Amino acid sequence: MEHFTGTSRTDLALEARELLTKQVNEDIPGVLVETSEDEEVVLTKVDITTPEAEKIMGKKQGTYVTIEAQGLRYKNTPLQEKIMKLLADELVGMAELSKKATVLVIGLGNRNITPDALGPRAIDKIVVTRHLQEILSPELKGGVRSICAIAPGVLGITGMETVEIVQGLVSKIKPDLVIAIDALAAASSRRVITTVQLANTGISPGSGVGNKRFGLTQESLGVPVIAIGVPTVVHASTIAMDTINILQEHAPFARYFKSMENLSDADRHTILRQVLPEVLGDLMVTPKEVDRFIDDIAVAVAGGINQAMHPHIDYENIHAYLH
Amino acid sequence: MEHFTGTSRTDLALEARELLTKQVNEDIPGVLVETSEDEEVVLTKVDITTPEAEKIMGKKQGTYVTIEAQGLRYKNTPLQEKIMKLLADELVGMAELSKKATVLVIGLGNRNITPDALGPRAIDKIVVTRHLQEILSPELKGGVRSICAIAPGVLGITGMETVEIVQGLVSKIKPDLVIAIDALAAASSRRVITTVQLANTGISPGSGVGNKRFGLTQESLGVPVIAIGVPTVVHASTIAMDTINILQEHAPFARYFKSMENLSDADRHTILRQVLPEVLGDLMVTPKEVDRFIDDIAVAVAGGINQAMHPHIDYENIHAYLH
Amino acid sequence: MEHFTGTSRTDLALEARELLTKQVNEDIPGVLVETSEDEEVVLTKVDITTPEAEKIMGKKQGTYVTIEAQGLRYKNTPLQEKIMKLLADELVGMAELSKKATVLVIGLGNRNITPDALGPRAIDKIVVTRHLQEILSPELKGGVRSICAIAPGVLGITGMETVEIVQGLVSKIKPDLVIAIDALAAASSRRVITTVQLANTGISPGSGVGNKRFGLTQESLGVPVIAIGVPTVVHASTIAMDTINILQEHAPFARYFKSMENLSDADRHTILRQVLPEVLGDLMVTPKEVDRFIDDIAVAVAGGINQAMHPHIDYENIHAYLH
Amino acid sequence: MEHFTGTSRTDLALEARELLTKQVNEDIPGVLVETSEDEEVVLTKVDITTPEAEKIMGKKQGTYVTIEAQGLRYKNTPLQEKIMKLLADELVGMAELSKKATVLVIGLGNRNITPDALGPRAIDKIVVTRHLQEILSPELKGGVRSICAIAPGVLGITGMETVEIVQGLVSKIKPDLVIAIDALAAASSRRVITTVQLANTGISPGSGVGNKRFGLTQESLGVPVIAIGVPTVVHASTIAMDTINILQEHAPFARYFKSMENLSDADRHTILRQVLPEVLGDLMVTPKEVDRFIDDIAVAVAGGINQAMHPHIDYENIHAYLH
Repeated sequence: MEHFTGTSRTDLALEARELLTKQVNEDIPGVLVETSEDEEVVLTKVDITTPEAEKIMGKKQGTYVTIEAQGLRYKNTPLQEKIMKLLADELVGMAELSKKATVLVIGLGNRNITPDALGPRAIDKIVVTRHLQEILSPELKGGVRSICAIAPGVLGITGMETVEIVQGLVSKIKPDLVIAIDALAAASSRRVITTVQLANTGISPGSGVGNKRFGLTQESLGVPVIAIGVPTVVHASTIAMDTINILQEHAPFARYFKSMENLSDADRHTILRQVLPEVLGDLMVTPKEVDRFIDDIAVAVAGGINQAMHPHIDYENIHAYLH
Repeated sequence: MEHFTGTSRTDLALEARELLTKQVNEDIPGVLVETSEDEEVVLTKVDITTPEAEKIMGKKQGTYVTIEAQGLRYKNTPLQEKIMKLLADELVGMAELSKKATVLVIGLGNRNITPDALGPRAIDKIVVTRHLQEILSPELKGGVRSICAIAPGVLGITGMETVEIVQGLVSKIKPDLVIAIDALAAASSRRVITTVQLANTGISPGSGVGNKRFGLTQESLGVPVIAIGVPTVVHASTIAMDTINILQEHAPFARYFKSMENLSDADRHTILRQVLPEVLGDLMVTPKEVDRFIDDIAVAVAGGINQAMHPHIDYENIHAYLH
Repeated sequence: MEHFTGTSRTDLALEARELLTKQVNEDIPGVLVETSEDEEVVLTKVDITTPEAEKIMGKKQGTYVTIEAQGLRYKNTPLQEKIMKLLADELVGMAELSKKATVLVIGLGNRNITPDALGPRAIDKIVVTRHLQEILSPELKGGVRSICAIAPGVLGITGMETVEIVQGLVSKIKPDLVIAIDALAAASSRRVITTVQLANTGISPGSGVGNKRFGLTQESLGVPVIAIGVPTVVHASTIAMDTINILQEHAPFARYFKSMENLSDADRHTILRQVLPEVLGDLMVTPKEVDRFIDDIAVAVAGGINQAMHPHIDYENIHAYLH
Repeated sequence: MEHFTGTSRTDLALEARELLTKQVNEDIPGVLVETSEDEEVVLTKVDITTPEAEKIMGKKQGTYVTIEAQGLRYKNTPLQEKIMKLLADELVGMAELSKKATVLVIGLGNRNITPDALGPRAIDKIVVTRHLQEILSPELKGGVRSICAIAPGVLGITGMETVEIVQGLVSKIKPDLVIAIDALAAASSRRVITTVQLANTGISPGSGVGNKRFGLTQESLGVPVIAIGVPTVVHASTIAMDTINILQEHAPFARYFKSMENLSDADRHTILRQVLPEVLGDLMVTPKEVDRFIDDIAVAVAGGINQAMHPHIDYENIHAYLH
C-alpha cells in the first residue's frame, strides 16, 4: 500500500506521523515517540526503527528531534536564546564529537529566493575557525572546534548537483561530520518558522523547498550527516487539501460533500500529484513577513550550531577571541 | 444580493467581471468591455459606467485597462519593450497631460516584503526631472516633463497613513496628476506577474497586497489619480476555492461532491471570510521566483511611465541628457 | 580670516574644534567643552554660544553631544546596549518632551548607497506608534509616545528637496519635534562608525555623506529639530591631507618637505577645494565591512531613540505590547 | 632592486607598466605592448615574456588583455553590448576551447562587501548548462558548452582557502578550463569600473580586493586558469601618494617640497607599507555609486563569458532554449 503522506506533503517526521495516525487511528509499529514540553516549547523525538516504519512514514530510518515554539514568530530575545540552547544540547547529543573533530557545515538553498535562503543566511553567521587553528591560544583551543562552512548554491545556478560539490569538498577537507541546513516544507502553516528539526539521517532526495534531486547522506558522503531544517513554506497543494478537510469538518458545509471520507487512495494521489500541481504550478505559500522571519531563524540556527561546536566562547564578547 | 467577488478575491476589474459573468452567465449592465490581442499580448478595457455596475462589480466607476502577456514571466527583452510601449500609450491616453504638467509618482508597498515591493522598486527606476527644470537645455525641455517620485513606506513602518503623507506632499508640490504604483492580488495564479492594470479611479481602500485602509483618489487628494498595478500574489483562500472548483470539474472526482454548484452565497461568504482566513492566517501565495519577477516587472512599469512622461528621450543613451 | 576646516572636512563639531585648536594652539572663544569618560566610552559636549564662535567653527550655534566608543566596530552586545542607554539619556535631556508629544523621525540618505543608508535603515527599526494611539491600553500609554517615521529618499531619486517633503509632512502631521538621522563625514578614520553625535541645531546645508543642498532646521520647519549623526565616511581629500601631515611628522620623511608647516591658507584652500576634488572625483573612503557596521549602528541609533521616546517598554518582549 | 610598484598598488598589468615606465622613463625589456582604440574603447595587450620582466613588473609571465571604456560608468546599453562582444572575442582567443569542453567559472570575493561582490554577482548571471547536457536538443548542443559556476565565499566566512575548495571541485568535476572572476584594486581612480582585464595567468596571491593568501593557477589546479577582473577600489595609500604627486606637479605648490622626486626607494617603501597602512587601516576608496556600478559590470562580464561559451544562443529569447 502506498501512502500519499510521504515526502511530498511534509519534510517533518513529526507531521508525517501525525498525518498517518490520524488516518489509521493507531500507533505505527517501529515508530517511537517521546515528548516533553513547557509553556513555550514542545520538544519531540521521533525514532524510526525498522525498514517497515521507514516505508510507511516515507522518512529514512533514524532519529528526528523537533523543537517547536509558536513564539518564534515574534521578536523575543529570551525565547530565541532558549531555542539556541536547546538546539545546541540536542546537537551535542546527536553528534558525539571529539574536541579535535573538524565539521563542515553546508547551507543548502537559493539565497535569491527568500523562503529557500535559510541555509545561505545561516552560513553567514557560523563562527568558522578551521583557518585559525594554528593561531588560537591554548586556553581557547579547548572550547573551539575546527569548523568550516559553505553555501554552495543550487543546481540551476551552479550546473552542479550539490552532492557533487560536497563530495569534492569532503575529499579535500576530510571532515568528521557534515551538518546540512535546509529550508523545509510543512504540512501545516502553524509550523512554518516555528519549528526546528534535527535528524541524523542527512538530507533525502525530493525534500526541502527547492526539491533536491540528490541525497546528502552518510552513504553518498562517507561521513555522518546531521540535517537541521526549518519549515518556511507549505505547498499550495497542501492548502488546497486542507480546504476540503476543513469544509468537511464544519457541519454547515458537510452537506456539500457526498463521501470525501472514503476518498480512495488512488484518487487522492491523482489530486495531489496531478490535478493540483497542474493548476497551482510553481506557487509557494509563505508568511507575508518571511524576509524578517528567515533572518531571525537563521540567527537561532547558526547560534545553536555555534554553541554546540564552541561551548566555551562568551558570545557577547566574541570579538575579543577571534579578531 | 451581496456579491462575494468584490475586492477580497481580486484587485483586477477584468477578473471581477469574469467571476461575475461566470456566476450569472450573462453580461453585467453598465459594464462595457473591449478586447484586442495578438499572439503575445491581450489588451482589455473595462468601463464601469453606472453606480449600479460599481456596486455589483465591487470596483469604483471608471476605466480599467489591462495588458496581459504570459511571456512576461520569462526573460524576453523584446516583449518587455513592447509592454512598456503599450503601457506608455495607454497612460498617455488616460492622463491627457500638458507638456508643462508636474506629475508625482507614488510607489506603494513595503520594500522589505518582496511581493509587496513592486512600488518601491519601480520608484528607483523613474527618471525624475522636477529638480532639473532650470538646468535642462531648451531642446530637451520639449520632451521632458517635471516628474517627482517617492516610496513613502507602509503604515506599520511609518505610523502615518499613506494618504496623509501624500496629502502633505500634494499641498507642497502641487502636482497636476498623481500616479500610484501598487502590487495587487489576483484571483487566478495565471495572472500573477503577467498582467498590468491601469485605472483612472485611483487606489481603493482594502486593495493591494498590503490591504490599505485608505483611498488614494481624486476625492482624497484633490488631483486626478491614475493607479498602475501588477498582481504579485493570489490569496490563499483563492487557492482553496480553486481546489473545490477543479475537483468538481474533473469528472472522476465529482462524485465526492453532492451539490457544490448550488453552494449558497451565504455559505460561500462564510467559507471565504471566516473559515479559511482562520486556518490560513497571514499566508500569501506567490511564485517561487518572485524576487526576480518583481525586478523585471518594476523595470517594465517604470519604463512605461518614463516613456509616457518623457516621450523624446533616447533611453539607450539617457546619461547623455541627464548627467 | 577664513578657516578651511569648516563643513567640508568634518560634520562633527568635536573634530572641527580639534582641528582648529591644533592650528591656533589655544581655546576658541565662545566654544565651551565638557568631557567625561570611562574605559569604554568618551562623552563630549560642545556648546557653540556666540555668532563669532559659529563663524570660526563653521558649525551653527547650539549644543553638540558626542558619544565615542572604539569598541562599536566589534560585535559587543553589552557595549551596544550601553551606547543606546547613553544616547537615550542625552536625547531625553535635549528634547524636553511632554508625554503627549508627537515626534516625526526622518531617516536621511540613499538606501542604495551603503555608507549613506544609515538613516533609512534606522527608520526600519523605529517603534512607530502614532497610528496605535487609540488602541493602546491606558497603562501602556504612559510609556509610549506618538512616534511616526519616514525615509524620504534623496533628491536624485525623488526630484524633491528633502526639506520640501518634510515641510509637507510637518504641515499635515503637526509634530512637536523632528528628529533627523543622517550619515556623516569625519575628518579622522578613527571616528568612522565609532561615534554618535546629537545636535539641537538640525541639519545644515552641505553636511552629510550625500551633501545636502538644504537645511532641516527650526527655521525651515517651524518646529525644533534634533539631528543624530554617525560618521560613515572620510572624504578622500582628507586622506590626502592626512598623508602630508603624517609624512611631515615622521622625522625620516620631513626632509622631503621644505615648509609645509607654513602652507598658506589660500594654498591649502586651493588644494582641498580644487586640486584634490579634480583628481579624486566622486570617490569615498569607507571601511571594508561598512555593510555590517551600518546595520549594527542603525540598531544602536534606533534603539536609543526608542528608549527615549517609549521609556517603559520592555524591549525583549516588545511583541507582547504592540502586536 | 626591489620595485614598490608591484601587486600592492595595482592588479592591472597595464598600470604596473605605466607606473614603471614613468619611473625609469624607458621601455621594460621582455614586456611587449599592443594597443588599438576607437572613440569609445581602448584595447591593450601586455605580454610579459621573460622571468626578468616578471620580476620587474611584479606580475606573472603571461598575457594580459585590458578593455577600457570610460563610458561604462554611465547607463549605456549599446556600449555595454560592445564590451561584452569584445570580452567574448578576447576570451575565445585566449581559451582555445573545443566544443565539448567543460568549463568551471569561479566567482571570487565576498558578496556582503559591495566592492568585493563582483564575482558572486556575475556568477548569478552565468548561463550554466552542465546539468542540461542530456536534455539539450541536438541543434542546440552545437552552440552550448558544458558550463558550471560557483561563488565559494571568502576565507573569513568559510574557514577554507578558496584554492582548497576549487581543488576539491576540480577533482570531482574535471573541467578543461577554470575561469576566475574577481574584483581588483587599481592605482588610478580613473580605471575603477571602467576597465576589464583578462589574463591567462590565473589569480596571484595577494591580489584582488580581499587580498588573497592563495594562488588560483595552472600549478595549483592542474588545468588552465583564465582570470577576468575589474577594478572596483583604489587603495587608500594610493590616494595618499597621488596627493603628493599632484602637489609636486602643480607649480604653485612645488615650493613646499624640497626633493620628493628623489624620494629613495627605501623611504617610499616604508611610507606605502608601514606609515600609511598604520593610519589608514582597513579603509577602501570606492565610487559612491558602487552598488549600481557593480551590478552593471557584472552583467557585462557574465554576458561576455556567456557569449564566448555559448556562441549560438539568441540571448534576447534565451528562455525559449533553456526553460
